[in-house]
Amino acid sequence: MFVIVTYDINEKRVDKVRRILRRYLSWVQNSVFEGEITIGKLEKCKKELQFVIVPEEDSIYFYIIENKNNYIKNVLGIEKDLDSYVY
Amino acid sequence: MFVIVTYDINEKRVDKVRRILRRYLSWVQNSVFEGEITIGKLEKCKKELQFVIVPEEDSIYFYIIENKNNYIKNVLGIEKDLDSYVY
Repeated sequence: MFVIVTYDINEKRVDKVRRILRRYLSWVQNSVFEGEITIGKLEKCKKELQFVIVPEEDSIYFYIIENKNNYIKNVLGIEKDLDSYVY
Repeated sequence: MFVIVTYDINEKRVDKVRRILRRYLSWVQNSVFEGEITIGKLEKCKKELQFVIVPEEDSIYFYIIENKNNYIKNVLGIEKDLDSYVY
């Protein structure tokens, strides 16, 4: 299935969240990851994130699209590939 | 159709982009809007955005899901409603 993950995370924790997400999905915009993933891996990813975030402050959305034919992506401006970004 | 809009916009232009998006969709995270919209309105929204952004610097993604039954949204942490945010 295809998943889009977006987030607003406190600056103290955002690097940790990104490091987890980078192991599962592609980093395509400052606060956005996307990609194909299995249900099992998505649940594992979520569990790791739950250890890191403060639920009362941080916000992560998972838009899950079972069939990748059921969405279209349009881009205005540049399409970013932050995976090659080293920090 | 349901649309998720995510963006990385230069600080000089981000307020203008948000003002346009707020007329069409719900502001649900710092760099994310979502909601139901017609093709006609989406095209109109894109045209307005094209006048504002600098394509070599800014990035806007439109994830378009024809049928709202074809996606599921999971939330970790808080679900934000920035529409009531006045600036």
